[in-house]
Amino acid sequence: MDKQVFSTPIDLKQITVTDTFWHREMELVRKEVIPYQWDALNDRVPGADPSWCMRNFRTAGKMMAEQRTNTQYVPPAYSYRGFNALPDDPEHPEEGRFYGFVFQDTDFSKWIEAVGYSLTQHPDPELEKTADEAIDVVCAAQTPDGYLDTYYIINGMDAALTNLRDNHELYCLGHLVEGAVAYYQATGKDKLLRAACRFADYIADRFGPEEGKCKGYPGHEIAEMALIRLYEVTGEEKYLKLSKFFVDQRGQKPFYFAMEDKARAEKAGQKWRGNPDDGSAYHQADKPVREQDEAVGHAVRAVYLYSGMADVARLTGDDSLLAACERLWDNIVKKKLYITGGIGGTVHGEAFSYEYDLPNDSAYSETCAAIGLAFFARRMLQIKPDSKYADVMEMALYNTVLSGMALDGKSFFYVNPLAVVPSACRKDARLHHVQPTRRKWFGCACCPPNIARIVSSIASYAYTENADTLFTHLYVGGQIEKDFGGKKLTMQVDAKMPWHGHVYVTVRCDEPVTGTLAFRMPYWAPDTVLTCGDKQPVYKDGYAYFTGEWHDGEMIRLHMPMMIRMVAANPAVREDVDKVAFMRGPVTFCAEEADNGGDLHLLRVDTRDIGDHGEGIIREFDFDTFGHETVRLHVPARRLLPPESSALYTSWQPPREEPAKLHLVPYYTWANRGEGEMLVWFRRK
Amino acid sequence: MDKQVFSTPIDLKQITVTDTFWHREMELVRKEVIPYQWDALNDRVPGADPSWCMRNFRTAGKMMAEQRTNTQYVPPAYSYRGFNALPDDPEHPEEGRFYGFVFQDTDFSKWIEAVGYSLTQHPDPELEKTADEAIDVVCAAQTPDGYLDTYYIINGMDAALTNLRDNHELYCLGHLVEGAVAYYQATGKDKLLRAACRFADYIADRFGPEEGKCKGYPGHEIAEMALIRLYEVTGEEKYLKLSKFFVDQRGQKPFYFAMEDKARAEKAGQKWRGNPDDGSAYHQADKPVREQDEAVGHAVRAVYLYSGMADVARLTGDDSLLAACERLWDNIVKKKLYITGGIGGTVHGEAFSYEYDLPNDSAYSETCAAIGLAFFARRMLQIKPDSKYADVMEMALYNTVLSGMALDGKSFFYVNPLAVVPSACRKDARLHHVQPTRRKWFGCACCPPNIARIVSSIASYAYTENADTLFTHLYVGGQIEKDFGGKKLTMQVDAKMPWHGHVYVTVRCDEPVTGTLAFRMPYWAPDTVLTCGDKQPVYKDGYAYFTGEWHDGEMIRLHMPMMIRMVAANPAVREDVDKVAFMRGPVTFCAEEADNGGDLHLLRVDTRDIGDHGEGIIREFDFDTFGHETVRLHVPARRLLPPESSALYTSWQPPREEPAKLHLVPYYTWANRGEGEMLVWFRRK
Repeated sequence: MDKQVFSTPIDLKQITVTDTFWHREMELVRKEVIPYQWDALNDRVPGADPSWCMRNFRTAGKMMAEQRTNTQYVPPAYSYRGFNALPDDPEHPEEGRFYGFVFQDTDFSKWIEAVGYSLTQHPDPELEKTADEAIDVVCAAQTPDGYLDTYYIINGMDAALTNLRDNHELYCLGHLVEGAVAYYQATGKDKLLRAACRFADYIADRFGPEEGKCKGYPGHEIAEMALIRLYEVTGEEKYLKLSKFFVDQRGQKPFYFAMEDKARAEKAGQKWRGNPDDGSAYHQADKPVREQDEAVGHAVRAVYLYSGMADVARLTGDDSLLAACERLWDNIVKKKLYITGGIGGTVHGEAFSYEYDLPNDSAYSETCAAIGLAFFARRMLQIKPDSKYADVMEMALYNTVLSGMALDGKSFFYVNPLAVVPSACRKDARLHHVQPTRRKWFGCACCPPNIARIVSSIASYAYTENADTLFTHLYVGGQIEKDFGGKKLTMQVDAKMPWHGHVYVTVRCDEPVTGTLAFRMPYWAPDTVLTCGDKQPVYKDGYAYFTGEWHDGEMIRLHMPMMIRMVAANPAVREDVDKVAFMRGPVTFCAEEADNGGDLHLLRVDTRDIGDHGEGIIREFDFDTFGHETVRLHVPARRLLPPESSALYTSWQPPREEPAKLHLVPYYTWANRGEGEMLVWFRRK
Repeated sequence: MDKQVFSTPIDLKQITVTDTFWHREMELVRKEVIPYQWDALNDRVPGADPSWCMRNFRTAGKMMAEQRTNTQYVPPAYSYRGFNALPDDPEHPEEGRFYGFVFQDTDFSKWIEAVGYSLTQHPDPELEKTADEAIDVVCAAQTPDGYLDTYYIINGMDAALTNLRDNHELYCLGHLVEGAVAYYQATGKDKLLRAACRFADYIADRFGPEEGKCKGYPGHEIAEMALIRLYEVTGEEKYLKLSKFFVDQRGQKPFYFAMEDKARAEKAGQKWRGNPDDGSAYHQADKPVREQDEAVGHAVRAVYLYSGMADVARLTGDDSLLAACERLWDNIVKKKLYITGGIGGTVHGEAFSYEYDLPNDSAYSETCAAIGLAFFARRMLQIKPDSKYADVMEMALYNTVLSGMALDGKSFFYVNPLAVVPSACRKDARLHHVQPTRRKWFGCACCPPNIARIVSSIASYAYTENADTLFTHLYVGGQIEKDFGGKKLTMQVDAKMPWHGHVYVTVRCDEPVTGTLAFRMPYWAPDTVLTCGDKQPVYKDGYAYFTGEWHDGEMIRLHMPMMIRMVAANPAVREDVDKVAFMRGPVTFCAEEADNGGDLHLLRVDTRDIGDHGEGIIREFDFDTFGHETVRLHVPARRLLPPESSALYTSWQPPREEPAKLHLVPYYTWANRGEGEMLVWFRRK
């Protein structure tokens, strides 16, 4: 590992995002998602399932207050009330009870994280006041020794930490830490951060390689990467150690989840029927992480784990761990990635399917999994600036991540298919997880707040830095401040991604500054031209490095030709043999019924009409359809005509076709014009 | 309706099957399946789940004996022990308990039915003795008032007839009747027939349109068609009435299954949470049968119902019922039928999927459903001799029905997919219902005995008769006796189907006989030539009718050219667009890994290589591979070469291919040479 190139994301306060494209998304999050989310947390969205989140914190807070003031207080003995506990009468939930999913606390943590990011770009005293009050409620629920998960505080602390596999305690810790760090970094206020540290301390006291400590690890990963953020913001070595312990311990024998399950059964006086040899591939816990070479199991869990592994590898200089990250990355990118940047081919376990199994209509491709893939990619970039990571991160961000949210910020996709026939989604039990239109909120509300937090912090994916280099991974327009050896340089990036490939970077500085500016050259523009006066770049791993003394007003001009690409999948992908998809820059396109009529599967592309560089395709800049600039593609095609016979099977005859146009829109814009068919991969000749 | 053309299947004692192809299958059933089945019924197949069937009859028989001799006897009060009740310790099942599925009695009924058919072709005193002893055991279990379902006799008669939807009582009645009629027709012994009549009487006393009688109907249809057989063999009008009642009542409001469910909940003091408006499409009970026009729900249930509807329509001259049958037939054949004659596109509910949804790899296509489709087809032929029914019946029989059984008669498929990649079946939860190799037996053993009964009675699908006509629907070789106005004519059919299209029919009679011989002309041989000396046929609905005075030695020569057909599906079938399949005669072909190597999806047919009449395809008569004559096809093809890049996605380039041959074998022979890939539909240019 070359520690010289290690980088960290820029502090969001170092950047002012002016990018037309992303600013619009960020404003949606600020104006629509964050307020809506707050209402949801407080169970006041009409027609939506209550979150119960703030209610649970208040309930736990009352119990803590009682405990502090009443020496006779007897905490409740644990009783399991289900993974998602709902009141018998939703109108009249019982006082003193925990409701919702076991991980419901994280609704708050994800919200406060997005709030933190948003405040860096758009100060909002009103919002900050609401957040501070919410933090008071949350902190009041913490136990005197630092534990903070209302599920066990309310249901009975005697069972805390006895079901790491299913009950998401360490997942709650992870999200709390992420939210606390973000809010602290945005506002400088540390109340929540201190609470998060105390919870992390509580766990660090009880988990670790030392004798007598618990050998468990999170059932749903995230604490691994969250603890690294806590370490990076506090400097406390024990958080790094705890994260590393979770990573190292995962998948070791005896398998912790099996042992834990056995212990619970024994405690309940039941015969254990589990399998001690099943470490659980669903949880990526079937073998030690350094021996893993195929991305398996629940896709979100997987990429969250890999993100934490990459962090630990970077901070501990662990080559074997980095090697595992690289193998898992390659496995995803070469065998398990949708052309939309989505991952997770199967609804069964919301999981990675087997290699090259990328079904289009029954895809799971969870929004959160694409977000997690961006987490993983950014962390690999921090270790090793190689454009292959940024290329995939960009693909995930501009396609599946954004597809997760409607263009008005008011409804969301959990699942992001690549082929939709609405009537089939309704009639076919195999497709019941696929929604043809976005929904307002989910009881298990992971995706909307996850979009909120990644969109609000997009700049930290675009720019990372180390002492002598500022890396531009994504061309997100804005002013970025960078300290080079005590001297400030401001880089003004004017970009119109993802529609235009011209980027102008202007350097602003009061005095000459020496340092390196590194720019990624995307795979989709092999003929990228970079100029910067007399400065000559050094090219390495898909990045152009300009090093030298910078003067105010110097400009770097980047031209990334935006060719339309007709893409084929590796023929090992059975679903996509004889098919093509269309991309331009990082954007994947799709056809919608709104533009093409129904029965999209009858449309076929004749590759001979297209030309080697997409000459046959008409590109149209469109400002009207979606309320912001987008690009449409009009592809020459053929439409299969109805057969002469209504018979199901006939002797083969050359198919009758008529000339047609395939009208394509960016994938992330789909399902914003009512319900209809959608298709990404097209039959071709 | 034209009652003049109504026909009934020939009695199996009127025919001696000599057909090479079917005789081999019948001998497998006689030598392998029937003995194996008997062992299975008696729980003595090592490694297979016990059937518990004969054990349950014995248990019930003991209870009946106790009841007869002991005035103090108190029958058990009903307690539900699960849809499939298994002992805690399989080695030591408790005495006096019912075990197995609620419909386990039918294992016996299906066996005795196959035994009956088999005895008509191959008298076997030993087998007949075993059967008689089994019948004694079964009849001993009947209650004094005629009820005969061991599930309730053992578990508590107080709950009998309170869960028609789930607990299969009337299904048990139906199979018992079918078995009893077959055994009576074969042997003339009526002990079981009388028991079946008594059970039918018991039901007829309690169900019907009359006030005070139960308005229910079978949760799993079969009684409808079985009662018709009972009516036809006994002449008892009440069985026809009961069948008609079941057909008429189905799907009427208030929905019986919902009301029954509600009554059970109320009796148990529970709040009913069901939906009174849900008649259950799964059970074809969501609307009155005469209003049904789409085949929906559990596929076996559906075609069993339609068979009963056709029977009732014929015997009552009910045009509206016949119209419903015709609509449902058309719906299946035009929108829901696999090229293998299979039906039921989805594992969810083992059901028909929506129109044109015919997935190949996740197909359900249950063996029993194809058998049920043959039942339905034969009944439609009985009403209206139209070759369109026989064409589909033949397709089901020569493909999916036979695919259900291994060529050695020792293992079976429940599910008959059209595309198999064994590793995918193991790894992909969406394909877990698909087995790449046949299994010895099933706990829910419907398919193996269903194959046994249809194969043993194949002649009754091939030949039907009325007073003045003998219909040949399938060219199954043998001697068929027909009485024409008191004079006997024997028709000797020499055929070598499905491999050769020459059929020679020789008439044998001691004195001249006047009558009509009708021969089906299959859709797959439009250029069929029929000659019969000076006699000129009349053609109608795909049948050639020869009428006149027949003399000993007269011959009818039939030549059905066996062209190889390259078949395309209606483009509404998304799965099969741009694909072709191959058929010859009624046989559908497939490619197996054993002949073609793996990755069958990389093989592609160029339609230009084939010619309009399949000239490019080499046909080979093969006597070695499968131990009996079959045909192989060798189709010119191209194999996609591995791409130059290991990348998942690349800019489209003309694919690199090499010339290849696609080696095809009959679909019914697949999976007899170890585990491997299989494919029916091929990519084409």
